[in-house]
Amino acid sequence: MKEREREEVPVMIKERLVVIGGDAAGMSAASKVRRERPEMEIVVFERSPHTSYSACGLTYYLGKVVDDPDKLVSRSPEVFREKYGIDARTCHEVLEIDKDGSRVRVRDLRDDREFWESYDHLLIATGALPVCPDLPGGDSAGIYGLSTLESGLVLRRAVDERKPKRAVVVGGGYIGLEAAEALLMRGVEVSLVQRDPQVMTSLDPDMGALISEAMREEGVTLYLGEKLEAFESSEGWVDAVVTDRRTLPADLVVLGMGVRPNSDLAAEAGIELGARKAIRTDRRLRTIVDNIWAAGDCAETWNLVSQRPFYVALGTVANKEGAIAGTNIAGGNDAFPGVVGTAITKVCETEVARTGLKERELKELGIDYVTATIRSRTRAGYYPGAARMTVKLLAEKGSGKVLGGQIVGGAGAAKRIDTLATVLHAGMDVEQMIHLDLSYAPPFSPVWDPVQIAARKLVKKV
Amino acid sequence: MKEREREEVPVMIKERLVVIGGDAAGMSAASKVRRERPEMEIVVFERSPHTSYSACGLTYYLGKVVDDPDKLVSRSPEVFREKYGIDARTCHEVLEIDKDGSRVRVRDLRDDREFWESYDHLLIATGALPVCPDLPGGDSAGIYGLSTLESGLVLRRAVDERKPKRAVVVGGGYIGLEAAEALLMRGVEVSLVQRDPQVMTSLDPDMGALISEAMREEGVTLYLGEKLEAFESSEGWVDAVVTDRRTLPADLVVLGMGVRPNSDLAAEAGIELGARKAIRTDRRLRTIVDNIWAAGDCAETWNLVSQRPFYVALGTVANKEGAIAGTNIAGGNDAFPGVVGTAITKVCETEVARTGLKERELKELGIDYVTATIRSRTRAGYYPGAARMTVKLLAEKGSGKVLGGQIVGGAGAAKRIDTLATVLHAGMDVEQMIHLDLSYAPPFSPVWDPVQIAARKLVKKV
Repeated sequence: MKEREREEVPVMIKERLVVIGGDAAGMSAASKVRRERPEMEIVVFERSPHTSYSACGLTYYLGKVVDDPDKLVSRSPEVFREKYGIDARTCHEVLEIDKDGSRVRVRDLRDDREFWESYDHLLIATGALPVCPDLPGGDSAGIYGLSTLESGLVLRRAVDERKPKRAVVVGGGYIGLEAAEALLMRGVEVSLVQRDPQVMTSLDPDMGALISEAMREEGVTLYLGEKLEAFESSEGWVDAVVTDRRTLPADLVVLGMGVRPNSDLAAEAGIELGARKAIRTDRRLRTIVDNIWAAGDCAETWNLVSQRPFYVALGTVANKEGAIAGTNIAGGNDAFPGVVGTAITKVCETEVARTGLKERELKELGIDYVTATIRSRTRAGYYPGAARMTVKLLAEKGSGKVLGGQIVGGAGAAKRIDTLATVLHAGMDVEQMIHLDLSYAPPFSPVWDPVQIAARKLVKKV
Repeated sequence: MKEREREEVPVMIKERLVVIGGDAAGMSAASKVRRERPEMEIVVFERSPHTSYSACGLTYYLGKVVDDPDKLVSRSPEVFREKYGIDARTCHEVLEIDKDGSRVRVRDLRDDREFWESYDHLLIATGALPVCPDLPGGDSAGIYGLSTLESGLVLRRAVDERKPKRAVVVGGGYIGLEAAEALLMRGVEVSLVQRDPQVMTSLDPDMGALISEAMREEGVTLYLGEKLEAFESSEGWVDAVVTDRRTLPADLVVLGMGVRPNSDLAAEAGIELGARKAIRTDRRLRTIVDNIWAAGDCAETWNLVSQRPFYVALGTVANKEGAIAGTNIAGGNDAFPGVVGTAITKVCETEVARTGLKERELKELGIDYVTATIRSRTRAGYYPGAARMTVKLLAEKGSGKVLGGQIVGGAGAAKRIDTLATVLHAGMDVEQMIHLDLSYAPPFSPVWDPVQIAARKLVKKV
């Protein structure tokens, strides 16, 4: 409506987009809108001092794989302002969305001044927040999360300056694994506490067991199936982690207990939430409110394999959604079809990847499925550097439609998950997978690529 | 007919399969038939002393990357005989197919004895032959092809014993590139002569130029756009290669001028040939003769992108076709849909891969197409070991349907061709490629995988 009215007096008032959150989704959207609509005013409020940084790179900065934190920043606020004409205001926190008044209440964190900013379009790109348990001793110093660039700088400084001997990582997901690797590289003794019986519960337990084994071989002491209960400290600094089974001495603690969508602001404004309390949007990334959009880690997405709403916090998805929200805010028409649930990481020499649905999800959905797991090599057996790799493939019983895949192995193993992700997007069955014309030469693969070896085993069970 | 008759007296006469050629296609088929039909008699005639070896591994044996040639053999004739009950007779050459009499004439190369062997089913899996130009001096010693395991052993021995200083490789395709790499690794000065203006004509000239550049950087002297005219020798051993532009001194010559299907035996028997004189088959791998089948490098296949008959000599295809021919010979029903034209190789640090159709093929087919080429990195820019990679993507103008892709880059670049190959199998368009949920973490990829960066550029041109 508003747009229409303004179109009648086009030269008078500039349209204004306000973006809450200046990382992947927010800045992708802002950049897209700038390209499509050079005349639109774009204001981005970012709580931290940084924009467009690689949250996924933080553990590598911790491990000194990357030494200059500036390298993690793809574009600074100054670049956005000067080169792109995007008014990127860091250290500005949005406190409230007034959707009826089409304005947001903002606090400038540098001087605590508050003001209202009006918008024609609002994009919520507030990202995710690390899950922080409210446990005794949880406010001790020396306990770190790893989510924003700031948190990464603080943790790295603590390791640089205090040179901890023993660290405890709580949580065996992506952040937990990568933090454990980083701390090992820094010469720290690492213990890892995980509530589940295996690390990496985004994979099935049998595949998780391979990762647990690899971590033990790298020197991480695992305490699996143990529940975090408290932290102990001396002089305000953490010195132990207490589980339901033991007390683990610790000079430093890293929490990697997962994330939740940062959707409180939206919820308080009466914007509908969906899966795991992420902001619900349509495929064009619009919320239930006409001129309010949401993208990235704060928003719900769609799982193309389960055909259900889905929540995932990943930079790739945030970038894609940001670009699509930007296109639509600029007046275009683009839709995000959804994801298949692809993720990849490594811990020391072991690569890990997954896509699609795992056994527990299939059971919950009541889908009758079959699985096959094979061990092969990343290269021809006789070629130097041929590393072990295990592939697990899941397919629907009867139809043979591929439903998911998981890979654990040495260098070169995990990126093969992209073939499986593409298979899922295409809705292929196991038979079609066997016929795929994948590349082979001795330095790259056995004659049958391991993902196809898995398919050849699985086809017999369908 | 014959089968029917025998079925009426099932215990009396064993059905017999004769296979001509004991490498990928032939032995895959024989193994498959053995599993499905334990009672069938299986005789394989192989001209060389070896079965089931990796022809693709020969250049790595030459380069001493692999030191034990036995490692290139996946199953010896003895294993086939003793463990699988397959009568694998090496050093046996089939000289004639008598299709009306359902028998083949065979020569035992060890004693030159000839005999006839009858069959119920015949599989022709005679592979490919290297193209050998009939040029002055071509019969000199010191000129080598690289196709069979024997030829690999002979060439390696020549390099080991004669320690050549200067070698000339003729041909800039897969074998030429890999042979050049191997000879460099052996400390030999390498020149490469190629008729075309770039190496690797299975890629477009602009991508081939990147490979030429990389080879020069590795120390190979390239003579592009030059035609081989003759060889010079002294005392019977080659000492120079003559092109239309110069005379190149050479202590050793490797020919990598491509291969042609070894289809003469079939042609002489009146079996129809197709693309590039490869044996024509239906998708079940049957020739025009009811009980004669053909698979692997001697047979024609189908290109799923061009929807035209196609010839390619690759171990992957041979293995797949062999397995399918085996299934059908055993009484099953399986069909080979075809290939999309995927291939991969490396020369020193540079990886090369291609799939689908290249520009010249698209022009010949009269398809209106667009292309985009991008430069990116194999990993996040800030992550150590992020190597350069160039991706070229081709799509149909208008529909945006992806038609082909080419990759040249450092470690980790080329295997991404599998994503593009799967895209081609699925018939996806560029837009769908952009939405693919591919894996990202800093050690594995930029946030947008390079193949998607290419798609994002290409989509604007569609």
